[in-house]
Amino acid sequence: MKIVSIQLKNNGQPKYLQLFNSIKEQISQGEMKPGERLPAIRSLASQLGVNTSTVVNAYKQLESNGYITAKKGSGYFISDTKSRIHDTQFSSDLGLYKDASVINFANATPHPSIFPIESFKACINEVLERDKGFAFGYDESNGYRPLRQSILAYFNREYSIPVENEDFLQIVSGAQQGIDIIGKALLNPGDYVITESPTYDGAVAAFKSRGARIISVNMEKDGMDIEELEKKIRICKPKLIYVMTRYQNPTTVCYSQEKLEKLMLLAKENNLYIVEDDSMSELYFEKEKYMALKVLDKKNEYVIYLKSFSKILMPGLRVGSMVIPKNLIDRFTKIKHTSDISSSGLIQRSLDLYFRSEKWDEHLQYMKEIYRGRFEFMLAGLDRMGKYGLKYEKPGGGLYFWVKLPRHLSAEFFYKKCRNNGLVFIPSGIFYDNMTKNCDDYIRLSFASAGIDQISEGMEILEKCLIN
Amino acid sequence: MKIVSIQLKNNGQPKYLQLFNSIKEQISQGEMKPGERLPAIRSLASQLGVNTSTVVNAYKQLESNGYITAKKGSGYFISDTKSRIHDTQFSSDLGLYKDASVINFANATPHPSIFPIESFKACINEVLERDKGFAFGYDESNGYRPLRQSILAYFNREYSIPVENEDFLQIVSGAQQGIDIIGKALLNPGDYVITESPTYDGAVAAFKSRGARIISVNMEKDGMDIEELEKKIRICKPKLIYVMTRYQNPTTVCYSQEKLEKLMLLAKENNLYIVEDDSMSELYFEKEKYMALKVLDKKNEYVIYLKSFSKILMPGLRVGSMVIPKNLIDRFTKIKHTSDISSSGLIQRSLDLYFRSEKWDEHLQYMKEIYRGRFEFMLAGLDRMGKYGLKYEKPGGGLYFWVKLPRHLSAEFFYKKCRNNGLVFIPSGIFYDNMTKNCDDYIRLSFASAGIDQISEGMEILEKCLIN
Repeated sequence: MKIVSIQLKNNGQPKYLQLFNSIKEQISQGEMKPGERLPAIRSLASQLGVNTSTVVNAYKQLESNGYITAKKGSGYFISDTKSRIHDTQFSSDLGLYKDASVINFANATPHPSIFPIESFKACINEVLERDKGFAFGYDESNGYRPLRQSILAYFNREYSIPVENEDFLQIVSGAQQGIDIIGKALLNPGDYVITESPTYDGAVAAFKSRGARIISVNMEKDGMDIEELEKKIRICKPKLIYVMTRYQNPTTVCYSQEKLEKLMLLAKENNLYIVEDDSMSELYFEKEKYMALKVLDKKNEYVIYLKSFSKILMPGLRVGSMVIPKNLIDRFTKIKHTSDISSSGLIQRSLDLYFRSEKWDEHLQYMKEIYRGRFEFMLAGLDRMGKYGLKYEKPGGGLYFWVKLPRHLSAEFFYKKCRNNGLVFIPSGIFYDNMTKNCDDYIRLSFASAGIDQISEGMEILEKCLIN
Repeated sequence: MKIVSIQLKNNGQPKYLQLFNSIKEQISQGEMKPGERLPAIRSLASQLGVNTSTVVNAYKQLESNGYITAKKGSGYFISDTKSRIHDTQFSSDLGLYKDASVINFANATPHPSIFPIESFKACINEVLERDKGFAFGYDESNGYRPLRQSILAYFNREYSIPVENEDFLQIVSGAQQGIDIIGKALLNPGDYVITESPTYDGAVAAFKSRGARIISVNMEKDGMDIEELEKKIRICKPKLIYVMTRYQNPTTVCYSQEKLEKLMLLAKENNLYIVEDDSMSELYFEKEKYMALKVLDKKNEYVIYLKSFSKILMPGLRVGSMVIPKNLIDRFTKIKHTSDISSSGLIQRSLDLYFRSEKWDEHLQYMKEIYRGRFEFMLAGLDRMGKYGLKYEKPGGGLYFWVKLPRHLSAEFFYKKCRNNGLVFIPSGIFYDNMTKNCDDYIRLSFASAGIDQISEGMEILEKCLIN
């Protein structure tokens, strides 16, 4: 280990974390090889002039992330690459960066301080009074019927989704489970799935866990490149297409009406299912509201509409929903059963009461106001930085900016630089299935969980790191 | 059948499985109708350019899943949708028989009226006071750490399970999700899994959804037939063995110490994982407490210990836990993440408080007393019916009796007769992967959700249906 290259600074970041990052870097860059032994704790502590507890903590972090392994009585050793948690890191993990001293533009879910806890608590207690033990019995695998009705009523009212029978709605334990169930229902090893490029890595991971092969189609300013899509459908005959039609993650693109219609036509012509993943269509900051692809699926045949409430309500509810084409519904309910029998009855019942109260609309307005404020604040900050060569399309809503870095600046490199200066976000590589050098020039900045002050501070760090 | 649409690829997946999936799809999508005849084996094999054994295997899989039916001398035919029992109906579905006028000996979970609602409600409100919005943030994918600690302390105290680091405990959204995650982590299409025979159908369904092949080993009075097990391990080199060592579902058998040790030895010799599914070891009615197989896995290397609280607490919590061998833990956490990110934080936190209170021990005692009363009552009833030829081994605990019917009486037939008279239970066929005529002579009677009065009434119906 090159101890000389370890420099601990008084920059507000805990020393053990600096040490952790520094050693991790040496391991990642191959300067330390699997099997190599780390210096003894005392000896390293004295060479660096820090407490032994600093080294102990850094080693523990390295161990819990799979970089090193303790062997009883003989110290710490660099792990085999295979055991590193490294390859298990999803965008959402990065978003969960726990260090509170770091400004977080990575996290895509709202901060717990703005959750509607009081009104939701009232719903929970009302359910427990009303249903007693039945709130903790098994619920139907397709979900608590009144909740399915109230969610569908919301979809009808808010998005004109043309499905009125709650038998076609399946409750899932969050959108991620929805994607997992879709994979189980429709994919066999070797099947092809078309995704947008860039796209949500958690979906790619779920499809791949079924042995599926991912084919990416480039995103344009108004949706997928339809010509490329047609060609790839012809060549690889995919089982399904996965899209986010509104405020796409990470590009923030919304599909034009024209592209939605073309997508729908392609689904019909090729007898294909399309998964439309929607987690934030409520968060529009312009007058115009974009249409869901599902609206065009008049007979409920081709589009699986997957709706998460994590970003507009609370991620820890672990309840999402899917509108499912009629000939798939039995298969999906069966797979939900084999996956986890049913989602929490207590939460489903409480959520039903919540949706039926006026609190839900009030909360949506409140969330939108908060997000709009942050959006405008971050927008102003980015505008000021145009002079450094940052480029982006102004999004009409959602929670992110998708920002192109100045030429020759690697997103991965810039991420590390900013992180060392106390700011995290998501570098574009995470969102590409096949990383090439062209995939390393964007960053995704989220204003979901950072307040105005933090956005202000974060923008300063960003500017500092761009200049130096 | 559209033979043109069947495309067998060299993608590592066995051809018979590809063929199975392809035909299944055509049936599910209505392209092949009930009653329609499948192509003859030889003719299909030659059209597809495969061995006849490939077609035979695919047809067998379809048959065992209820999609097609063999008619002697005239070939295979698409089944009536109703007969696809194995595919859509699980034991737990049967248990959820909703008609309140029917006596329910099928349901394996306690009745909501005996859930500890008041004390659990207090825990929920305490958590909401204490953690506010953080109760609804994302929790770590491996679970809320304090809960992992309190569950592990319980395992140490109650069962001497020799694992002390909560990093080896994974929280799951119920035991069914645990099985699903095990399948995703360890099974690829075509892999073999050994199960007890009879066994829990929900586990079989989860393994099959990974394309695994099930090999059954006969249950004896003190556990699996070890000779048969050894032979089958040698022949098919399974990826894992799935067992319920205490009050096995449905046979109520507990493994002898000798068989546990042999199982452990076989795992070591063959470098195999064993899943030990435990949902009711707390419910022993004799002085003697049976040992968990996990106790013998001193170095936490071979046994995945899966613990459900559905039967001893409340099924709707949707929280279970797994003790995982150390070299699997990262893989499992990653798969949990891809499955549903994390389990409900609110419920995990409340459960943690509950386990740390004395309420938990009090509730366990209360549950045991209730169940013991029902157990003895049903036992007395069955004793009186010995004269009709009913036979069973008196279980030492658990929630069921596994009752052999008089000769020549079909369990399926008897089930229908009783159901028409107002009593449901589970006929043995559900618990066998390959239904043969020998699998239709037992019934499982559960006293989990029926009170004394209902047991009394149910036994009368049983007697009436035996006599007439």
